[in-house]
Amino acid sequence: MFGIGHVEQPEETTAGRSPQLQVILIRRKDEPFKGCLALPGGFVNVRDDRDQGESLETAAHRELEEETGVTVDYLEQLYTFGDPGRDPRGRVISVAYYALVRTKDHTPRAGSDAKEADWYSVDALLASSDKLAFDHDKILAVAVDRLRAKIRYAPIGFNLLPQKFTIQQLRKLYEAILGHDLDEANFRKKLNTMDGLLVDCGLAEDVPGRPGRTPRLYRFDKRAYDRAVKQGFDFEV
Amino acid sequence: MFGIGHVEQPEETTAGRSPQLQVILIRRKDEPFKGCLALPGGFVNVRDDRDQGESLETAAHRELEEETGVTVDYLEQLYTFGDPGRDPRGRVISVAYYALVRTKDHTPRAGSDAKEADWYSVDALLASSDKLAFDHDKILAVAVDRLRAKIRYAPIGFNLLPQKFTIQQLRKLYEAILGHDLDEANFRKKLNTMDGLLVDCGLAEDVPGRPGRTPRLYRFDKRAYDRAVKQGFDFEV
Repeated sequence: MFGIGHVEQPEETTAGRSPQLQVILIRRKDEPFKGCLALPGGFVNVRDDRDQGESLETAAHRELEEETGVTVDYLEQLYTFGDPGRDPRGRVISVAYYALVRTKDHTPRAGSDAKEADWYSVDALLASSDKLAFDHDKILAVAVDRLRAKIRYAPIGFNLLPQKFTIQQLRKLYEAILGHDLDEANFRKKLNTMDGLLVDCGLAEDVPGRPGRTPRLYRFDKRAYDRAVKQGFDFEV
Repeated sequence: MFGIGHVEQPEETTAGRSPQLQVILIRRKDEPFKGCLALPGGFVNVRDDRDQGESLETAAHRELEEETGVTVDYLEQLYTFGDPGRDPRGRVISVAYYALVRTKDHTPRAGSDAKEADWYSVDALLASSDKLAFDHDKILAVAVDRLRAKIRYAPIGFNLLPQKFTIQQLRKLYEAILGHDLDEANFRKKLNTMDGLLVDCGLAEDVPGRPGRTPRLYRFDKRAYDRAVKQGFDFEV
């Protein structure tokens, strides 16, 4: 139950900086794992047998907002973690949800119970010896694996690009999610195999006499994009 | 928490019959939904806070065996269904698991509490106006969708083929899972794009003078197969 985003810096500071895959974590104020970083989450509200309370999705949205102030349109179910012993308080089964958003559009704020909430670099977390609370390292790893697998066959995160974008922006999105650089020529070549997905919108700026300096803009063809969402594609980056 | 298999008839009765995607259902002996067909399943055993009981996977395997007598090596988590109101007895969250097996290797038998258990045609169930218990129609539909989506990018069910198999056997496997026929020439052409996956093992029977009657046998190249499991492939059938 968390968001994964990539950082976008203000225009003037982007030189040499690339967007990064990040995740929102909170710092726990209570035992168990007091003081540890953790994925935002909590318990589903259940009333009684007649009014059985909220859906899992509703609970995920509510807990995310309560603990981080962040709201998203859509959360996708990731996986359910239910091993015995994963919570010292008793048997707890966690249904994990995730979303991918632009970090600059979603600034976390401390929740009502004054927990800290912030974006953290996924690669730094995966490389760190500091452990997240509970089995949240495992949940994070499963989420990152899912995201990195899915970008090979589904247009994950393409909605985070501006309506018209450069090939470099699309490549940077892939690089952020995958966590490593991609060869530019190879990336362009593979894009050409994605039948009709990109529509050429001309040069970014009409600077006469300096076409070499202005990158070409593209948009997604709606029909090809919808087909990619539905049927997937093969983008072996 | 169920198995999906495809029927294989004894050699002498296969003429004109194709394998079918099937699912094991049980008939409920108790309320709610007494007498209705349902996916096998039950509650996770939880003891106390110190011994928190069995894992979700263990519970899925145990319930499958208790209710149908069927054991499988591996169950994959499908999705978690937790909408309020889905069980009239109270708030129940179901973590669904699935597997794909050869039906002829897994004959269901009635469980200890004498429930009926049998294989049912998935396409017949999806087309039927008879409802399964609880929201099991929805769970079944999600499982079938997952399977049919996954066969386009992962070698699902390839382990159900004999070690050496004909292209027709592979095509019949795809047809069973997808629920519709595939064009043979087109299927062969697409197989050729799956780089190095198939290894030619020669003719099925060495009948001199009648090579046209004997189909060619293939096996999977282990390295290419493992790569396909790990990285996926694109097989837009």
